[in-house]
Amino acid sequence: MFFHDKRLQYTVRCEKPNPLFARALQQAIGGVEGEIRVCLQYLFQGWGFRGPAKYKDMLLNTATEEIGHIEMLAYAVALNLENAPTSMQEEAASASSVVGAVLGGSGATASIETLLAGMNQRHLLSTGMAATPENCNGVPFNASHVYASGNAAADMYCNVAAESTGRVLACRLYHLTDDPGMKDFLSFLIARDTMHQQQWLACIEEMGGSAGLPIPNSFNQSNEATDFSYVFIGTNHDGTPPPAGRWTQGPTLDGKGTFSATVGVPHGQEPILGPARPDSGAQVEQMSATPPA
Amino acid sequence: MFFHDKRLQYTVRCEKPNPLFARALQQAIGGVEGEIRVCLQYLFQGWGFRGPAKYKDMLLNTATEEIGHIEMLAYAVALNLENAPTSMQEEAASASSVVGAVLGGSGATASIETLLAGMNQRHLLSTGMAATPENCNGVPFNASHVYASGNAAADMYCNVAAESTGRVLACRLYHLTDDPGMKDFLSFLIARDTMHQQQWLACIEEMGGSAGLPIPNSFNQSNEATDFSYVFIGTNHDGTPPPAGRWTQGPTLDGKGTFSATVGVPHGQEPILGPARPDSGAQVEQMSATPPA
Amino acid sequence: MFFHDKRLQYTVRCEKPNPLFARALQQAIGGVEGEIRVCLQYLFQGWGFRGPAKYKDMLLNTATEEIGHIEMLAYAVALNLENAPTSMQEEAASASSVVGAVLGGSGATASIETLLAGMNQRHLLSTGMAATPENCNGVPFNASHVYASGNAAADMYCNVAAESTGRVLACRLYHLTDDPGMKDFLSFLIARDTMHQQQWLACIEEMGGSAGLPIPNSFNQSNEATDFSYVFIGTNHDGTPPPAGRWTQGPTLDGKGTFSATVGVPHGQEPILGPARPDSGAQVEQMSATPPA
Amino acid sequence: MFFHDKRLQYTVRCEKPNPLFARALQQAIGGVEGEIRVCLQYLFQGWGFRGPAKYKDMLLNTATEEIGHIEMLAYAVALNLENAPTSMQEEAASASSVVGAVLGGSGATASIETLLAGMNQRHLLSTGMAATPENCNGVPFNASHVYASGNAAADMYCNVAAESTGRVLACRLYHLTDDPGMKDFLSFLIARDTMHQQQWLACIEEMGGSAGLPIPNSFNQSNEATDFSYVFIGTNHDGTPPPAGRWTQGPTLDGKGTFSATVGVPHGQEPILGPARPDSGAQVEQMSATPPA
Amino acid sequence: MFFHDKRLQYTVRCEKPNPLFARALQQAIGGVEGEIRVCLQYLFQGWGFRGPAKYKDMLLNTATEEIGHIEMLAYAVALNLENAPTSMQEEAASASSVVGAVLGGSGATASIETLLAGMNQRHLLSTGMAATPENCNGVPFNASHVYASGNAAADMYCNVAAESTGRVLACRLYHLTDDPGMKDFLSFLIARDTMHQQQWLACIEEMGGSAGLPIPNSFNQSNEATDFSYVFIGTNHDGTPPPAGRWTQGPTLDGKGTFSATVGVPHGQEPILGPARPDSGAQVEQMSATPPA
Amino acid sequence: MFFHDKRLQYTVRCEKPNPLFARALQQAIGGVEGEIRVCLQYLFQGWGFRGPAKYKDMLLNTATEEIGHIEMLAYAVALNLENAPTSMQEEAASASSVVGAVLGGSGATASIETLLAGMNQRHLLSTGMAATPENCNGVPFNASHVYASGNAAADMYCNVAAESTGRVLACRLYHLTDDPGMKDFLSFLIARDTMHQQQWLACIEEMGGSAGLPIPNSFNQSNEATDFSYVFIGTNHDGTPPPAGRWTQGPTLDGKGTFSATVGVPHGQEPILGPARPDSGAQVEQMSATPPA
Repeated sequence: MFFHDKRLQYTVRCEKPNPLFARALQQAIGGVEGEIRVCLQYLFQGWGFRGPAKYKDMLLNTATEEIGHIEMLAYAVALNLENAPTSMQEEAASASSVVGAVLGGSGATASIETLLAGMNQRHLLSTGMAATPENCNGVPFNASHVYASGNAAADMYCNVAAESTGRVLACRLYHLTDDPGMKDFLSFLIARDTMHQQQWLACIEEMGGSAGLPIPNSFNQSNEATDFSYVFIGTNHDGTPPPAGRWTQGPTLDGKGTFSATVGVPHGQEPILGPARPDSGAQVEQMSATPPA
Repeated sequence: MFFHDKRLQYTVRCEKPNPLFARALQQAIGGVEGEIRVCLQYLFQGWGFRGPAKYKDMLLNTATEEIGHIEMLAYAVALNLENAPTSMQEEAASASSVVGAVLGGSGATASIETLLAGMNQRHLLSTGMAATPENCNGVPFNASHVYASGNAAADMYCNVAAESTGRVLACRLYHLTDDPGMKDFLSFLIARDTMHQQQWLACIEEMGGSAGLPIPNSFNQSNEATDFSYVFIGTNHDGTPPPAGRWTQGPTLDGKGTFSATVGVPHGQEPILGPARPDSGAQVEQMSATPPA
Repeated sequence: MFFHDKRLQYTVRCEKPNPLFARALQQAIGGVEGEIRVCLQYLFQGWGFRGPAKYKDMLLNTATEEIGHIEMLAYAVALNLENAPTSMQEEAASASSVVGAVLGGSGATASIETLLAGMNQRHLLSTGMAATPENCNGVPFNASHVYASGNAAADMYCNVAAESTGRVLACRLYHLTDDPGMKDFLSFLIARDTMHQQQWLACIEEMGGSAGLPIPNSFNQSNEATDFSYVFIGTNHDGTPPPAGRWTQGPTLDGKGTFSATVGVPHGQEPILGPARPDSGAQVEQMSATPPA
Repeated sequence: MFFHDKRLQYTVRCEKPNPLFARALQQAIGGVEGEIRVCLQYLFQGWGFRGPAKYKDMLLNTATEEIGHIEMLAYAVALNLENAPTSMQEEAASASSVVGAVLGGSGATASIETLLAGMNQRHLLSTGMAATPENCNGVPFNASHVYASGNAAADMYCNVAAESTGRVLACRLYHLTDDPGMKDFLSFLIARDTMHQQQWLACIEEMGGSAGLPIPNSFNQSNEATDFSYVFIGTNHDGTPPPAGRWTQGPTLDGKGTFSATVGVPHGQEPILGPARPDSGAQVEQMSATPPA
Repeated sequence: MFFHDKRLQYTVRCEKPNPLFARALQQAIGGVEGEIRVCLQYLFQGWGFRGPAKYKDMLLNTATEEIGHIEMLAYAVALNLENAPTSMQEEAASASSVVGAVLGGSGATASIETLLAGMNQRHLLSTGMAATPENCNGVPFNASHVYASGNAAADMYCNVAAESTGRVLACRLYHLTDDPGMKDFLSFLIARDTMHQQQWLACIEEMGGSAGLPIPNSFNQSNEATDFSYVFIGTNHDGTPPPAGRWTQGPTLDGKGTFSATVGVPHGQEPILGPARPDSGAQVEQMSATPPA
Repeated sequence: MFFHDKRLQYTVRCEKPNPLFARALQQAIGGVEGEIRVCLQYLFQGWGFRGPAKYKDMLLNTATEEIGHIEMLAYAVALNLENAPTSMQEEAASASSVVGAVLGGSGATASIETLLAGMNQRHLLSTGMAATPENCNGVPFNASHVYASGNAAADMYCNVAAESTGRVLACRLYHLTDDPGMKDFLSFLIARDTMHQQQWLACIEEMGGSAGLPIPNSFNQSNEATDFSYVFIGTNHDGTPPPAGRWTQGPTLDGKGTFSATVGVPHGQEPILGPARPDSGAQVEQMSATPPA
C-alpha cells in the first residue's frame, strides 16, 4: 500500500518559463528513457519477484521513489508553461513581450509563432498548461516498455540500461537549459541516476556477478549448441574477417570459454514452403510449384 | 549495402506442426525480447555510431546476423502452421485427426476448437499460414523499442539486457516444445544469445569497464547533486531502514564513492500552481484559490 | 513524495489458481477501465491542478490509493498463475492433474492445451508467471487514456466515467470466478468503485452542480451559435422525426434553455478544394477541375 | 445503412490560411477529445445497445451527425493549408510573403522556416495539404478510446466526459485563432457540444438519475464489501486527516449511505510469492527464499 | 453531411452463435484489411481530394456505403455472442449445453473453458457481448492505416490493395464458418469487394492507365537517376544473377523503358560519422576516432 | 542468411546540414510510406511465400536492397544533424551563426529557437544526433503496416501502393530541399521507386493480369452474391444518381461482367439486439425492451 507527502522530494524552481523546454522535459516523463517507465518497471519487477524477499523490498523502495520523480517533473513542466501563449492573435502581444523577456538569455527572443510552432500543442489544447504522460514529440507512453522478465539478473541489466539512457537524457536536458532552477533540479535527478546505476550493478555483484552468466543461469548449458556459444560470426559480404576486439580473443566473461571469430556461412537449408492449400485464400497460380508459362 | 544467401544460417525442422507453438514463437520475432528488436537496435546503433569505427563494424556484423535469425523464426512459424485448421466445421474432421496425431506427445489430442481458440487468428485470416511481425499475443512490433542513445556504454547495457531477456525467452520456448527439430533450432539461438551477452560485456570491458561509470562519463560530475549520488533512499512508510545489501555499504562500483543508506524525507516545497488563467478553458471555480462556499 | 507499506490494502487470497482468470484480471490492471489508467489519471489531474488546493489534495489521496490497487491485482494475477503449465509435453502430465483438480468447480477439467490456448502467453514467456501492464488480450496500456484536461468539471466527469466502467468490469470479473478468495478481493474493489463514483459526483455538486454547465463555464456563451445549443438534430434518412425523450422537451439541465428537436438539414456549402498545386506530388490529371476525356 | 449529402452541416470559411492552426485543428479530428472518437463511440454504443430501442435510435442519430463534424473539420484543415510552404529554398520567397501577409493579424509575420517547423509535416509530405486522422502532434487516432461498455449509464457518463473535454478543446481553439471564418465555424461546434452535454445528462435523468447508482445498478450490492463503500480513505504519509468536502460528510448521492472519512491503513497481508520454479527461466539464486551469502 | 436508415444494407442472420467466430469477424471490423480502415480511407481521400470533383463524389459515395458495412459486421458479432459464457463455474453448466448444441455441426462440442480461452475476453469484460473496434487478436484499430496521399493514382492502388486483402479475408471467413446466415452475409461482402476492386481499377484506367506511371506523373522524370529506373538489382550474396521474369526483360509497363537486370554493387562511400561532440551525452571514448588501447 | 558491405548502395552527401530536413527525412525511414515498411513487407512476403519459388527469390532480392535504403537514409539524417543546436542559451550563439549560414539559401537564417522548435527533439535528447525508426512527427514505426496476405496478387497490389506513395513522398522531399547532395541522393531513391512500381506491375502481368481478378481468384465466384458484384451503389441522400464514369458502364476489368449503377436501398432488417442478460453488467433499465416511464 502507498502513501503520499505533499512536499516534493527535492526543490523545483523555474526563473524563466519556456514552453519549448516544457516539451523537452516531457521526454523525462513519458519517453522510453523516462520516469514513468522506470517507475512501472521497478513496481512490476517487485510485485512479480520470486526469490529472496529483500530484493523485492529494494525494488519497491526505489519504485516508490520514482513516483516522486514523475511528480517533480510534472511540476517542472507546468512551471515552464506559465505565461505560454494561448493565441496567435494581437491580444497576445503583451504576453509576447513577457515570453521574449524570459527567453532571452542570449538577448534573442522567440516570437509567439515560434513558441506555438515548437510547443507540444496538447500543453495548450488538452491540458491547459500542464504535463502529459507523453514524450517530447507528444507520443503517449506505452507500457510495453516495462521490462520485468521474472529473471532477476536480466531485470537488473534492464535497469542498468534504463538508468544509463536516463542519465544520458538528463545530462542533455541539463545542457539544453540555462535556467538555474532547472539546472539545480536536474542535478538532483542526475545524482539519483548515478546511484541507481550503481545500485543495480551492486545487486548483480551480490547475486553472483559472472556466476550469473549466461542469463538465465538455470538453463542446462549442455542443451545449447555449444559450437556457437563463444564465437563471433562475421557477416561481411566480401569475406574479410570480422573486426577484432575483446570479443574475438581471450577468456569469456563467464569464465566458461574462449572467444574466437569466424566468417559466417549458411549451415541450414533453403527454406521452401511449397504450394498453397486450395482453401487458403491464395491465388490459383500459387497452388503449384511451377510458375505460369 | 546488404546481400542475401538463400540458405538459412542453421537448419530448421519441425516434425510435429503445432499452431499453438507457432503463436508462442512469434514472441521471438515481434516481442520486445525478440529478433526484430535486436536487429533494428544494432542497425540503428551502428548507423548512428560516432567514435572509433571498429565498434560500428562490429555492430553491423551482428545486426546482419540477426536479420537471418528473424528469417529462421519466420520459417519455423510457417512449418508449425502446416495443416493448421481453416474451418470450424465438419469437413475439418479429417484434418483434426492429423492435427491430433502430431500434437499428442503425451497421448492427448487437441480439438480443432482448441487450436482455433489458441491460435493467433491472423495466422489463418491475414497471412494464410505464415509469420507476422507481432508478438505471441498478436500485438504488432513497435519500433520505439529500438534503443540507440548515441552513448556507446548505455547502448551496450541495452544490448546485454536485450540478449538476456532474449535468452530467457528462448529457454522458455525450449521447455515449452518437445519437437526435436524445434529444440535443435532453439539450441542454436540460445547459443548465439550466450555469445551476444558475452560480446556486449566484452565491449564494455574494452571501453574502460568501471571507468565508463557513471554513464555518460563525459558529464562533469561536479555538476550533479553529489550528496545524493551514492546513497540508497528508503521510502518505507513506517520509517524502518531500507533493505541492506551490497548497495548500502562498501565502495561503489565506479570507485568514486561509498554506498550508504538513509530514510527518505521531502527536501522540496509543496508544489502549488495557483489559479487558472481566464482564457485557459478551466472552470470559473478554478480561477481563485478559494474553494466555493 | 511517496512512501510504501509492505502490506496490501486488503487481503488477497486464491484457492484455485486459474491462468484463464489471470488473463481476465489483466483487464483490471492494464485495460482502459483498469487501475493503471485511473491511477495515472488522478495523479496527472492532481499534479496539473490549478485552483483551490484542497481538490489537488483529494485527487492525490485517491491516486495514491489506486497505486495500491494495481499492487493487489498484480499479486492476484501471480497467485492465479501458480502451477500454470510451462510445457505442451508429457512431463506436464502430473501438472495437468493438479491444474485440472483446481479448475474443476463444476467437475470439469481443462486440458493443458486449453490453458495454453487461453493464457496470455506472455505470462509464461515474458514474465515467468507474473502480471504485466497489459489488458486481457495482451495489449499494453497506452497512456493516451489519461484524461486530465485542466478543467475540473470535465475531469470529474471523466473520473465518474472511469469508475463506472471500472465497476462494471469488476462486477463481470466477480461473476466470472467462483474462487472465494477472488470474490472477496473483488468485493473490496467494487466497494471502492462505489465510493469513487460518489466522490467525483460529490465534487461536481460542491463545485456548483448544474451551474458548472456547459463545461467549460468560463467561455462566454454568447460566442456560441446559440440557435444550435439546445436542439436535438435528427439525421434519419427518411426525414422522420428523431426519437423523443427528455432530450427533446422540457428545460435543459443547465437551466439556460429549453430542449427542442428538428430534422437535420445542411446549412453549409459543398466543400470543393480545387485543382492540386503543380509541386505537390499529385497526378497531372488532378491539376485541372475537368476530368480526363 | 448510411447516406451522404454533398453539402456541409454548417458553413466553413477561412480568410487567413495558417498551417499552424491546421495542425491545432487536428486535435479536434483525431485527438482523444475529438470527433472521430465520439463518432465511433456513439456508433459502437448504438450498434451494441441492448434494451429499449429508442436509446439506440438516439445514439445513431447523433453518431451520424458526428460524421459530418469530422467532414467539416477535414475541410477546415485543408483550407488552412492553402498556400502552405512546400520548400525551404529561395523559390519559396514569394509564397513566403503571401503566407506572412495572412498570418499577420498582429503585424508580425512568420517565416517559412517557422511554418515548416511548426506544421504537421505529414500535411506536406503524406497528404499533399489535407487532413489526417491524427491529433495535433501527429499521433494517429487509436480506436481503444471508443468506450462502449454495454452499460447504458456508464456509457452516458463516458459521453458527458467526451463532450466536456471536447467543448473545452473547441473553446481553446476559438481563443487560438482570430480568423472570423474559423471562429464562426467553431461557434457552431461549441453549440453542438453544449447540446450533446445536455443530451447525455438528460438521458441519465430519464433512465433514473441517482437510482442508477452505483453503476451497474444490476449488481447485488450486498455482495460488495460495504464497510468500504462510502468512506473516503486518506493516504497522507503523516497521518493527517484527508481533505474535507462534500465527499466526507452528508448523505451519499445514491441515497444509500452517508459519507465518512478515515486514515488509510493496510488491511492485507505482505504479498510474498516464494521461490521461482526450476523450469521457469529464473536465476538459480531465485530458487530459494534465502539471499546469497 | 450524413444520414442514417435504421435498416441494414443486407440481411444478417446467425443460426449458431459462436463466440470464436465473433472474434474472427473482428478482423473484418478493426483489422488492417477491415471496414473501418477502408471507410476512413475513402472518407479522408474524398475530403482531401483536389482535382475533378466527380472523383470526390465517387469516393464519398463508397465511403458512405462502407459505414454500413461496419454496421452489419457489428451486428454479426453481437449475434455470435448471444449465449456466450459469462462464468467459468458450475452455474454455467446449462449454458454450456446450449453453447455445445449450437457449435456442434460436426457433432463435437466445445467446452466453456475452450470458449472462454478462445474469446476476445473484452467481448465479455468490456462490452457486455458486443463488437469492438479491434482486430481478431483484440488489437485496437490504429488510424495510421488510412492511406490518403493527395495523389489520386497512388490512392487508387492503395484502394485496390485494401479491397484485395479485404476480399481474401472475407473468403477465409466464409471457409471458417458453416453457419448459413453468416455464409449468406459474407457472400454479400465478398461481392461488394469484387465490385470495389473493379471500381478502383476502372478509375485508374479512366485517369490514363499506364500514362499515369510512374506515380506521381507530375514529377519531371529527367530529375531522377535514370540509369537505375528500369533495372532489377540482384542482391544475391554469391553473385548469381537475379531471378528472371517479366521484370528483367521486355518493355516496361509505362512504355518509357526496357527492363534489364544486374548484380548489385555498392556505388557509394563508407559512411563514417566521426567523433562525438563533447556536449552530446556520449562516452569520452567516442570523442576520438581511435579505439581505447 | 544475410551479409553486409561497408559501402552504401549510392553516394550520400550533404552540403548544408539542416535539422528540419533531418526531421522530414524520417518520414522516408519510419513513415508508412517509408523504407522500414517496404523492407519488412517484402521480407515477410518472401519468407511466407507459397507457390513457385522464383517469386520468393525476387521478393528477397528486393527486400535486401531496401535494407540498404534505410541505411542510406539513416546516414542522410545524421549528416543533416551535424552542428544542430544542443542548447537554448548564449553559448550556442556561435553555433547559431554556423547554422544560419548553412540554412540560408535564400539569404534567410533560422534562429536556434526555430530549429529547436522544429526538430524532432529525440534527435537531440534520445539519439545524440542520429536517426530513429520514427516518422517525421516522431511517431515510432508500427509493424502492423507490413502487408503480407499469403495471396500473391493482393501482395503485389500492396507493393505497388507502397512504392507509389513512397515515390510521392520522395518527390516531395526532393522539392523541399535545395541541397545538391540531398537532391542527388533522392534522385536515386526516386529512380528505384520507379523500377519497383514497374516490377510489381510486371509480376501481376506475369501471374495472369486480369485473369487474377477478382482477388483471390481461387474462391468459387458462384458463392458470392453476384447481383452485387458489378454494380456501383450510390448513397446520395437525395437519391440523385451516383457519379458516372468508367465504373458505371462498359465491361468490367476482369472480363466477367458489365458495370452498372444503382441508387442504394436497405435490403436488410432493422438490427435489434433485445434486452440485456441479467448477469451481464448492464443497467436494470436495459433488461426490458420498454423504456422507463
